Amino acid sequence: MTTQTQLPERTWDDADTQRDVAAVRAAAPLVHCLTNYVAAPLTANVLLAAGAVPAMVAAIEEVSAFAAVAGGVLLNVGTVTTETANTFIHAAAAADRAGTPWVLDPVAVGAGLRLRDRVAADLLEYHPTIIRGNGSEILGLSAAAGGGKGPDSTATSHDALDAAAELARSTGAVVAISGEVDFITDGKTTLAVPGGHPAMTKVTGVGCSLGALIAAYAAVVEEPLRAAASASALLATAGSRAAEVSTATGSFAVALLDQLSTLGA
Amino acid sequence: MTTQTQLPERTWDDADTQRDVAAVRAAAPLVHCLTNYVAAPLTANVLLAAGAVPAMVAAIEEVSAFAAVAGGVLLNVGTVTTETANTFIHAAAAADRAGTPWVLDPVAVGAGLRLRDRVAADLLEYHPTIIRGNGSEILGLSAAAGGGKGPDSTATSHDALDAAAELARSTGAVVAISGEVDFITDGKTTLAVPGGHPAMTKVTGVGCSLGALIAAYAAVVEEPLRAAASASALLATAGSRAAEVSTATGSFAVALLDQLSTLGA
Amino acid sequence: MTTQTQLPERTWDDADTQRDVAAVRAAAPLVHCLTNYVAAPLTANVLLAAGAVPAMVAAIEEVSAFAAVAGGVLLNVGTVTTETANTFIHAAAAADRAGTPWVLDPVAVGAGLRLRDRVAADLLEYHPTIIRGNGSEILGLSAAAGGGKGPDSTATSHDALDAAAELARSTGAVVAISGEVDFITDGKTTLAVPGGHPAMTKVTGVGCSLGALIAAYAAVVEEPLRAAASASALLATAGSRAAEVSTATGSFAVALLDQLSTLGA
Repeated sequence: MTTQTQLPERTWDDADTQRDVAAVRAAAPLVHCLTNYVAAPLTANVLLAAGAVPAMVAAIEEVSAFAAVAGGVLLNVGTVTTETANTFIHAAAAADRAGTPWVLDPVAVGAGLRLRDRVAADLLEYHPTIIRGNGSEILGLSAAAGGGKGPDSTATSHDALDAAAELARSTGAVVAISGEVDFITDGKTTLAVPGGHPAMTKVTGVGCSLGALIAAYAAVVEEPLRAAASASALLATAGSRAAEVSTATGSFAVALLDQLSTLGA
Repeated sequence: MTTQTQLPERTWDDADTQRDVAAVRAAAPLVHCLTNYVAAPLTANVLLAAGAVPAMVAAIEEVSAFAAVAGGVLLNVGTVTTETANTFIHAAAAADRAGTPWVLDPVAVGAGLRLRDRVAADLLEYHPTIIRGNGSEILGLSAAAGGGKGPDSTATSHDALDAAAELARSTGAVVAISGEVDFITDGKTTLAVPGGHPAMTKVTGVGCSLGALIAAYAAVVEEPLRAAASASALLATAGSRAAEVSTATGSFAVALLDQLSTLGA
Repeated sequence: MTTQTQLPERTWDDADTQRDVAAVRAAAPLVHCLTNYVAAPLTANVLLAAGAVPAMVAAIEEVSAFAAVAGGVLLNVGTVTTETANTFIHAAAAADRAGTPWVLDPVAVGAGLRLRDRVAADLLEYHPTIIRGNGSEILGLSAAAGGGKGPDSTATSHDALDAAAELARSTGAVVAISGEVDFITDGKTTLAVPGGHPAMTKVTGVGCSLGALIAAYAAVVEEPLRAAASASALLATAGSRAAEVSTATGSFAVALLDQLSTLGA
């Protein structure tokens, strides 16, 4: 099968990528993140490095007002509970009403954990702009297949391509699949973002941070497909360059933020 | 306007700063932090680097006992919810009763988020020893002005000087305003702490960590104005030195902790 | 007293240690952590560096299913509340029923904080495979003595040896005491793991991460005493080697992850 090589690629060298990276730095969008407490610190640092402004307002009394004024919103169900699920719904509804672009990250959906499966399905009703997950999560969310052991991916991003395209068509969202190659599809056009580095899977929260980064780009770049592609190309480039200047996972994480804060700055 | 240049300055070179830094290292005060989950890891590491002992006991059944035995308490409303707000009130009341110095960090107060505005106002009734925020937050808390987009400051520290002095007089708290220059006032005396580096705003939780550091210093240094000034001078110095030995935000964060752990050690 | 020097030692140089380190990397066990939000990011990164797969599913509706499929479970009461205590009980019961090895980390138990004292005692009924804490916490949990100021240890690991052996005999758990020398006992055999470095106490979450690492090893290594010893020897070795290549706490934390990710890889 040669689908992968036939798809148009998006890399750092494309003018669109560099234009969007500069645009996000210039606009400094406010990104409201409801995310898991494991990935939260790295997520905030990734947003700051890319020139965005993170905020992690958590109260159900506050998220509606905030999702309406933020440039973009990330909802990541990694450590969702019954209480926070309700807050997520409020934030998604407010973003949908206000026309704020928002990203759904269905962490570990499809792995046999019922609450998040239901919450993620409920959130689809509020029209996420972009859905970002690994192959297993996209397969889980699309119900095209089950599987995955927790947030770790067993399906490759390529395995989930067909399910992603169908999910994009049925929900109206752009779907971004993370993996050795990232794929981004709106159900008609599919882009491949090569690059990155396996070390990115050895630092907690890198995938979750990509969801937040995509929300930042969607706040500034009008077309969601392009926003997701530019954010993915930035992170992949930062990852591969960080791997060149580090030898193990502790220093890789530091180098990743260094690269993110200097690329296109 | 020349107010800024007329104010007495507090820097690393002052004997008071270095004496207080040594005193905190010698006393190793226990600092109880109720803070947001984004800043919590860095906050704990900043306290450890400065020689204090962080603890982040979170249960409403435990905070009263703990606030009474801790050397200092930090209450940071960054990710406050209705449930944790109640815990904050218990901790503040216990600290107030026990005479434990405590710091209020009114993250994003004045930005149109109602729960935290109310919680912060309620907490003022328990006599915070020191209030620390950026210009927008101090303006928000003092109701001298609204504004700010989330936890990011749009008002400068200098813009909030008059409001801070008034807030100090009306509450009895020392008010520390973070910015390009930090200002610390008890309503009569105002100190300026120059230094620091813009990179400090590109690492999540540095401002929140200063609140915790001030609580550690207030546990050991009797005069709150001096405690806040010494803590601010330590962090500003660590920040400017870290910027000299790093080139981007990932390595800056590492260097900041390195500097904090070696200054005066 | 010469007990310490008479005990058999476990170090990096033992064949068992290196065999177990390789076995964990080969098996990539899924480790379910219910831990405090301060230590969570480092804990996940430590697990990834050692070749395990962390997951921090938090909902009471999900933990039972997850504890049953995970290779190992960590329950750390650092920031436990009444709500999360209930979730902990569900996870412990599910792990016990499914035969999943699980680790109890009784953070700050015995320090006068009643909720966690009760929760930790309740959790003992679900047969933890291994209990890991510092001297004060083991003394607190065993009720052999009170004491400790928060999560910081005032009792040495050696002070808690007798209490640990008794606790092991009464609960059937292996007890791992962290300190300048780590001790691991099943009530009959006691191993000493020397090494490590004081800098490990200056980075938040290193002790908590050891609890998770032990859960990863217990998922793969059949004998709990050996699993705890190998995990402790790995972390101690990483710590002492990291101290050789770093000079302060920020860079030490980075070097610790670098060492963990390369030792035996």
